[in-house]
Parts: sequence; C-alpha cells; structure tokens
Amino acid sequence: MIIVLTGNGKGKTTSSIGQIVRALGHNQKVCLIQLFKGENFYGEQKILSSLDNLDFFSYAKKHPFCCKDVTKEQISSECERALDKIKKIIADNKYDLIVLEEFNIAVRDGYINISSLLEAAKKLSEKSTVFITGRQAHEDLIAAADLVSEVKEIKHPYNEGVSAKEGIEF
Amino acid sequence: MIIVLTGNGKGKTTSSIGQIVRALGHNQKVCLIQLFKGENFYGEQKILSSLDNLDFFSYAKKHPFCCKDVTKEQISSECERALDKIKKIIADNKYDLIVLEEFNIAVRDGYINISSLLEAAKKLSEKSTVFITGRQAHEDLIAAADLVSEVKEIKHPYNEGVSAKEGIEF
Repeated sequence: MIIVLTGNGKGKTTSSIGQIVRALGHNQKVCLIQLFKGENFYGEQKILSSLDNLDFFSYAKKHPFCCKDVTKEQISSECERALDKIKKIIADNKYDLIVLEEFNIAVRDGYINISSLLEAAKKLSEKSTVFITGRQAHEDLIAAADLVSEVKEIKHPYNEGVSAKEGIEF
Repeated sequence: MIIVLTGNGKGKTTSSIGQIVRALGHNQKVCLIQLFKGENFYGEQKILSSLDNLDFFSYAKKHPFCCKDVTKEQISSECERALDKIKKIIADNKYDLIVLEEFNIAVRDGYINISSLLEAAKKLSEKSTVFITGRQAHEDLIAAADLVSEVKEIKHPYNEGVSAKEGIEF
C-alpha cells in the first residue's frame, strides 16, 4: 500500500511520526528515511532513536532554502544515497512500514526523478506499506497511491509573525 | 496557543501522537486525553504508555456509532468526567502540551457544549499548548484557535472496499 501525505498545512511530519509509533505498537518493523531534517533539532528524533524495531536514516540534512553553505550537487548526491538505501531495503525485505519523509520536496525541487520515486514506492509496496510525505506531491505519485490525505493550512500564526515554537514545529 | 486539527482525511490522530513524541523529545510534560478510542486497540497506546513525562487518560471508550451497547447518557457522563479532568489540569498547571483527542466529535454529537470546550481551551492555552483533534471542528473553535490545519481525504481505499489495516488505521 502506498500512502501519501501532502499539502501546505502543519501536521505531515508529526503524522508520519505517529504512524511509526502506531506500527511499532503492533510489533511491526519500521524504517524511516528522512530528507532535509537537521539532526538533534526535532524533538521526535531523540524519542524515535530510543525505540526498538525502528531503523532511522537521514540524508541531505541541509536544504539550500535554509542553508546557504550547501550546494545543489551535494543535495543531489545525498538524495542518490537515499535511493541506494531504498534499493537495499527492497532487497532485504524486512520492514512492514517504510516512511519516506519529505521525498515530495526532493521530487519538486529536482533532486529525485518522479520515475525513480514511483519505481521505488511500487517495489516497496509489494511487501510493505510505504508512507511518503512532503508538500506538493507529484500528480503521478497521487495517481499511483492507494491513500492520499492533503493537510491544508487554514490558519497559522507564522502568518501573524509568530516564530516557530520548540515542541510544536520542531 | 490553541492548535486545531480537523477534516475528514486520515492523519489527525497520528499527527497528535507525533506532536506528543516531538514535545517529549524536548523534555516537555504532556497530557493526552482521548475520547472514543477503544483500549488495547490502537498500536500507539502501548508505546505511549511506556514513555516518561506523558500522562494518558481515556474516556468514553465506546461511541454509539460503533458500539450499540452504550447509551448516550453513558457517553455524556464520560465526557463530563473528561471536562472535570481538564479543570484539574488547569488548576495543577504542570503540562507544556495538552492533547484533546476527538473532542471535536464530542461537540459535534452534542456530548460537550462548544462553550465548555472553548472555555477549557482558552484557560489551558494561557499556560500550555492545547492541541484539539477530530473532524468537523466547530466554527467558534476555529475562530478562537491560533493554528488550524484541515486534513482532507483525497483518496482512501475504504472507498474501494478495503478494510482497516493493523498498524495503519489502528
């Protein structure tokens, strides 16, 4: 099964974290591959790394949008490493749930081809549930997915000049 | 701060679980009050109960929609107990984050007055972040909230006759 969580609202990453916790509660084996998430920053990273049955990999920890000291070539090469990891995961076939965090952004920004992501998602979904997050999901991924939710921003205090809050946005 | 997560799509409860995990990762103190969620059913309940700094209460574990052996009076009385618990929480003032799961449903179905929920949310939000979930959030709650996301169902395999999957929907 391929699940896609997209949209511009708050709740996508937290939902994938909750999905992981839910699966672990059923003694399932889970793999999380994060893109564009700085380490030792998001509160969930500390808790997740303490849980059994979860393997957690992080690539392209910086995104050019926020970090000027990283080149597009570095990001592309990191995303390539993430895809190589997925190929290994497909071969190993040991996870019930694989979460691909912010992969929609990598496709949108040209770091991962939609055809590569689709091929990976389809192969993974033969044996596992695949959960893909990030705003602006590609239409081909939405077409291929079994379940799609869009998190829409109705109201956000950022728009009123309020800054990101520890424990809420990170 | 009052955060509301509403809408008919999959991702609201998992997002509140992820929010809890994120806050706990920053050593915050968290309280989760769930309505209408059967015990020992959802995978996350097992994991959450093993985490430090989280107090977890559950009321009205059955909902008349799915359980015919429960009366509306029983549900109302359980929701009343949940509101009493919130009053204690306001007085104790020891949590950074309070998650009120499915309280929008309790308002929609007439078990909790919107004015009672609004009063509770406003008082809680003076000292803590309040996170309220459930589809069809009341317009007065949306107006009072600082951050609102709507999870829209774009595609769901239930609609194709596929049944709920362990580790995904529960």
